[in-house]
Order: sequence, then structure tokens, then C-alpha cells
Amino acid sequence: MTFALHPRLQQDCIEIGSLPLCRLLMMNDKQYPWFILVPEIADITEIHQLTSTDRHRLIEESCYLGENLARLFRADKMNIAALGNLVPQLHLHHVVRYRTDRAWPAPVWGSGDAIPYSPSEIEDILTLLKKNLTRCRIV
Amino acid sequence: MTFALHPRLQQDCIEIGSLPLCRLLMMNDKQYPWFILVPEIADITEIHQLTSTDRHRLIEESCYLGENLARLFRADKMNIAALGNLVPQLHLHHVVRYRTDRAWPAPVWGSGDAIPYSPSEIEDILTLLKKNLTRCRIV
Repeated sequence: MTFALHPRLQQDCIEIGSLPLCRLLMMNDKQYPWFILVPEIADITEIHQLTSTDRHRLIEESCYLGENLARLFRADKMNIAALGNLVPQLHLHHVVRYRTDRAWPAPVWGSGDAIPYSPSEIEDILTLLKKNLTRCRIV
Repeated sequence: MTFALHPRLQQDCIEIGSLPLCRLLMMNDKQYPWFILVPEIADITEIHQLTSTDRHRLIEESCYLGENLARLFRADKMNIAALGNLVPQLHLHHVVRYRTDRAWPAPVWGSGDAIPYSPSEIEDILTLLKKNLTRCRIV
């Protein structure tokens, strides 16, 4: 099997770019700066199914993304999670959290309907990421 | 500062043992097999604050734990997460999920009150883990 992005991720997210191991997506919900890394490997549902090399690449890409998001979006806290109860394809959430956000201190999953970005808001985020995530090939 | 377990983790969890990097805890809630790794390093709140060596140790210990839990408790899915909105000390949740569990398919956080284990149930789990998590020093 070759890798293909799960249809639900395609539907809910905007493709932002790619790192050596992972596709980088942004959840189309402007209530939270919320990014997702998807290792481009077919048929993986759990982190422990990755080889040791890919585990290390995943945590390095996750930390690179998380550290940059925390700085660029002035996070109070990062929430990092691999859940996959609804979308089994392995994907790692990186959610920038604020003490003032809608769901705080609860997790964001299931906290209400998404509010989509406008095209110009998406452009602004792509510009910000292009300038700052220099290890990432932005679309 | 030397490492000390956050009082809220001490209160909600049972100490199970330790791996080279992390303290291993079990959430005292028998609704879910729910284990937590806490890197024994002071003043860390985000995974990206760890050194590269410790990031790799963390993901290896997490995968070792996650793979064993999935097998021993016949998980439908593992949920792995570093949230920390309430307890800022870095800790990594490993929750065994079943399609039949109380919160499924939602995450477990905030899904209702914990139901504590009995002493004999705790003993049974410690025995199971001692036999299977051979890389872990069980208390």
C-alpha cells in the first residue's frame, strides 16, 4: 500500500507543507492554532509501529513544530496528542492553547463546531510559517 | 531544582515503577488502563524542552510501554498525549481505549469521575507488569 491521506483529514484540514517524515496539516478551525503531523507511511495507526529511526524523526519533527508554534503563537501551553479513535491513520496533534481559549482547561476535541478560516487568514498563516519553519517545505 | 512529582499526580495516581528516564504511574481509575510517564527532570513542561537525547529516550520508553499495554490489555486503540493544562509538569498519558469504553470515541479527559481500584486489583496489575515490563523497575 502506498501512503494516502485519510479522507477525514483531507476534509477537516488545510495542507500546509511537509517535513522529511511527515505531511503538515492545519485544522481548519480558527478557534485554535492547531497543526497535525502525519507520517507519510502507509498502514500505521500507533507510534510504536514505527521503526526506531522513524520514531526519532517523528519526535524531532514534532519538537521542531511545537517549539516554533509555541513561540510564534505565544502559547500558554502546547497540547500534543496521538488519539486516532475516529481517524485511525497515525497523526499527531499540536494544539496551541491559551488560558482564555474556549475549551480551556479541557482538551479541544469535541468542544464544539469548527470555525473555518477566511482565505486571507490562511494566506497570513502560510506567510508566517514560510518565514519561520525553514526546515518545512510549505505548499 | 531537583525533580519532585507534582502533588496532583501523586494524589490521582499509583506509583508503578521507573524506566531509565521516566517515573511510571497508573491513574487510579479502573474504567481505563491508563498509565503516565513522567520524565524525572525538574522544571520541564513541554516535550520540546528536553534535550535531543532525552526526547529519543522518551519516545522509546513511550513506545515500549504503549506496545506492551496494547498487547496486555488488548487495546482497540492507544491514546498518547502530553496535555498539561492542569498539571504543568511534563507527563505523557498512555490510555488503553476500547470501542466499548465509557468515553469512546471521545478522549477520556473530563469524561466523569474516576472509579478507584481495590488493593487486590492493584496487586494483580503489578504482578502482570512485573512479568511483562521487564525493562521497567516495578515498585
